[in-house]
Amino acid sequence: MIERIAILGTGLLGTSAGLALRAAGFRGTITGWNRGAEGGLTALGMGAIDSIASDGIEAARASQVTVLAVPIYATLDWMEQLAPILGSEHLVTDVGSTKAQITAAADRLYNTPERAAFLPGHPMAGKERGGAALGDANLFRGAVWLFTDVPTWERSPHGAALVKGWREWVEAMGSKTIDIEATRHDELVGWVSHLPQFVATALSALLEEEVGDAPELKDVGGRALREMTRLGASPYSMWRDIAYTNTEAVQTALHALEQRLAHLRENLRTPALRDEFEQANRFRRDA
Amino acid sequence: MIERIAILGTGLLGTSAGLALRAAGFRGTITGWNRGAEGGLTALGMGAIDSIASDGIEAARASQVTVLAVPIYATLDWMEQLAPILGSEHLVTDVGSTKAQITAAADRLYNTPERAAFLPGHPMAGKERGGAALGDANLFRGAVWLFTDVPTWERSPHGAALVKGWREWVEAMGSKTIDIEATRHDELVGWVSHLPQFVATALSALLEEEVGDAPELKDVGGRALREMTRLGASPYSMWRDIAYTNTEAVQTALHALEQRLAHLRENLRTPALRDEFEQANRFRRDA
Repeated sequence: MIERIAILGTGLLGTSAGLALRAAGFRGTITGWNRGAEGGLTALGMGAIDSIASDGIEAARASQVTVLAVPIYATLDWMEQLAPILGSEHLVTDVGSTKAQITAAADRLYNTPERAAFLPGHPMAGKERGGAALGDANLFRGAVWLFTDVPTWERSPHGAALVKGWREWVEAMGSKTIDIEATRHDELVGWVSHLPQFVATALSALLEEEVGDAPELKDVGGRALREMTRLGASPYSMWRDIAYTNTEAVQTALHALEQRLAHLRENLRTPALRDEFEQANRFRRDA
Repeated sequence: MIERIAILGTGLLGTSAGLALRAAGFRGTITGWNRGAEGGLTALGMGAIDSIASDGIEAARASQVTVLAVPIYATLDWMEQLAPILGSEHLVTDVGSTKAQITAAADRLYNTPERAAFLPGHPMAGKERGGAALGDANLFRGAVWLFTDVPTWERSPHGAALVKGWREWVEAMGSKTIDIEATRHDELVGWVSHLPQFVATALSALLEEEVGDAPELKDVGGRALREMTRLGASPYSMWRDIAYTNTEAVQTALHALEQRLAHLRENLRTPALRDEFEQANRFRRDA
């Protein structure tokens, strides 16, 4: 039923979505738009999109489903621009890492009988570096793809069929879908996604200061160090909007970890160290 | 020249050393001793050792090189037991994760013209779980194998040839050897090995408390969460001795990371966040 898709932003996620749709058997058109010419050409060359649109608004208007695959503030900006132009024959969805602000904007701008539908989405997949060239048809395979604000679809009867169709394509790309309330989403990813990232950043920055002048000694850390600092390569440009739009949840999580580390530091020679290891073991056993 | 090796402790590292020696072409005898019968039988069945000794002291006496592959306090205990029994025709080496106490014991008990030589060693390789069954001939391939206290060999002329021979086998197992002073070793591994472990333990324990009751939501974290908490599976039994014998370095590192996390938490919406990401990026670029 979905035959025309526009992907606005052909970075890592947008390009991967195009490739994954093709790999899953999508035979309709995929039009791409990208702020920089190079990313668009790379996605085109990889077969993730069929054509490059010079105007993202026109591309969205000509499609049934528009996927916003840009940073969070750029997503909010596109939402404002597209809402007055699109109608009930359109679905807009996104891949942003925080959902409270995007879901609030969707409630305000979309999802009435006359307007386009908006389905806030968040695939829990990525790499520590971005860009079209790293696009991967298997990026979403085995990943969880979260959707928020799902209960409001009775307000957008036309959109409901498009939403159902898009969810089926997400599953065809290999993802498991989970519906979750937007505020709970942001709290949860604060713990399981943003906290690990900010810890890896702080650990990498600290180690750069402490052992950065002895590159041969970094080898000493081996696989464990490489894993614990891999996310240290993540660029600020990807994480700035997350830090701005989920500040409170991230602060809560960071503060809790600071206290946990202090507790561990004060108990390196007491039985409480065993308790910490055993609680950590439980997390991994259930994982 | 080395034809008889004893491995005291056939856990993950001891079993892997036996397997790696064989894979590298060692054709002499490898005698194993293990505190528990099962670990010894597993190592024997895997071909890591040729025979199981009921008495570790006898096994050491009959060998030219004895590898202590047990936790740190057990290593110190074996060092005390073996020193009066072995002579200048013997080399003892170990694989312990902290080196200041072991190196001090070596200076006190070994490395005179009459006594056995002792070469403190530390292969930077392991897995988050131990045991003979996980033994792996390739565990040391591409890893760094650190040696401390190397400058004192003029005190043990007989041992020097055995030391040279053992270092050649370590390289044949695929490791890169680096010599480092013992105190500097403990400081360095406090940063690049122990800090990452204790962070993973604290992060895993915290997440068990915060999201442990929602197992399906752990999937949400994806690869990043799995990597950042993999070491959370490490057992207390492996890390207790490290916490006890490198307390000060670990405390220094943990405290520095607590401050770094607090700094990041206070700057989620300021330009200092960019600086942290860029410094973390530099660590990974050089890595």
